[in-house]
Amino acid sequence: MASVSLSLHAIPGLPLIAPGDDLAGLIEEALRKCGLGLMDDDIVVVAQKVVSKADGLYVELDSVEPSQRARDIAAQVGKDPRHVEVVLREAEEVVKVGPHVIVVAHKLGFVMANAGIDESNIEHANGSRVLLLPRDPDGSASVLKARLDQMFGVSCGVVINDSFGRPWRNGVVGVAIGAAGMPALVDRVGAEDLFGRTLKVTEIAVADEIASAASLMMGQANEGLPVVLIRGYRPTAPARPAASLIRSRERDMFR
Amino acid sequence: MASVSLSLHAIPGLPLIAPGDDLAGLIEEALRKCGLGLMDDDIVVVAQKVVSKADGLYVELDSVEPSQRARDIAAQVGKDPRHVEVVLREAEEVVKVGPHVIVVAHKLGFVMANAGIDESNIEHANGSRVLLLPRDPDGSASVLKARLDQMFGVSCGVVINDSFGRPWRNGVVGVAIGAAGMPALVDRVGAEDLFGRTLKVTEIAVADEIASAASLMMGQANEGLPVVLIRGYRPTAPARPAASLIRSRERDMFR
Repeated sequence: MASVSLSLHAIPGLPLIAPGDDLAGLIEEALRKCGLGLMDDDIVVVAQKVVSKADGLYVELDSVEPSQRARDIAAQVGKDPRHVEVVLREAEEVVKVGPHVIVVAHKLGFVMANAGIDESNIEHANGSRVLLLPRDPDGSASVLKARLDQMFGVSCGVVINDSFGRPWRNGVVGVAIGAAGMPALVDRVGAEDLFGRTLKVTEIAVADEIASAASLMMGQANEGLPVVLIRGYRPTAPARPAASLIRSRERDMFR
Repeated sequence: MASVSLSLHAIPGLPLIAPGDDLAGLIEEALRKCGLGLMDDDIVVVAQKVVSKADGLYVELDSVEPSQRARDIAAQVGKDPRHVEVVLREAEEVVKVGPHVIVVAHKLGFVMANAGIDESNIEHANGSRVLLLPRDPDGSASVLKARLDQMFGVSCGVVINDSFGRPWRNGVVGVAIGAAGMPALVDRVGAEDLFGRTLKVTEIAVADEIASAASLMMGQANEGLPVVLIRGYRPTAPARPAASLIRSRERDMFR
């Protein structure tokens, strides 16, 4: 009996991404050059950072005037007040403040450290700048999917991933902040287990698992590999966006 | 330029696991039968459930006398008081109690729902029984690694995975509760990014990403595929157990 297999490929040959770059076009070229192309049900995982860069979502810290609240939090956590100000502008709610970290609910709904803003792997011309999350990651994923589908004559999935820390566990893992053409969340309500009992575990965060798998290939510092192709995943549920992964306040015991 | 690739294989042919079964022997047989064998640096991911079953870690609920505290919590969350009693016996600390869920710090250190005890995919002979986590998952992973290494004449990695829910995000994802022969946590302190700045993200939970990738292949209900082989991962750090993934109380903002 043959094994069921899945393959992940870190796609080489992408240049450093600059504002205005045609990300779909660059991904197409890289996929063709490495000989993999794109097939039905392939999932293309793209690092958040390159989507944000193509969208030019930089903020120059010299242009930011921190509020009193930002100054207070900055003093408390040991951060640049201008950086904190940008975090607060991105946030809907501050969930928790700790040493060097401000856990917020981003306006997109994701609860995350520092509103997803980091300063690594960003070119610095004159002074410091930071990079924001894509304004609409599910929308960006949909656009990438539509372009790639059209270029290759297939129907693929796209996931935009980022690295999040977690309560209770050390280390960051890849998570999905955008998804299109694949089931970000799979509902198992009513599915029966091998012994015919109804499963109580109801939902699987498939897009987060895909994002983590791709993150293994991307590494953390190597911006040369921001695109990973996943081939062989067979979706068993309808497509749902990454927004479906956001736990509603009413169902959340930890905020 | 060729892509860097990783492949995941769900290994067919494992029988339902019973107490006392030789799990390493059964995995060896399945790996040989499907033609994959085992190579240096391969990572074998094994579902927690089959490790616990081989170890016979069942508790018959009829034999459990719930304490008053278990009765109180059971009434509050809507669970069987005997089940709650078993959860409490497995726990070092109750972190949070909510509808149908008791988030505890397991004696092993993992903060998780219901002390990792679930009732799905367990054969029921006379009345209800539940299955506990392995008593020492890192130790179980080490034993499996040693046996498989010896059988195949290689040096492999082993991860024991489970599915955990998370705060703030819907759905469960695969996480590592045991690891051997691979770096569960990779420390990036001092690593430089592409632009020569020191990275602030310091640790990557590689074993959790491996566990999530494997979980994609295992599915949630299909106990027929509890072993996944991961081929092509190149470890860049020394081996560390899954215990390194447990965030210390002092560094934890959420308990």
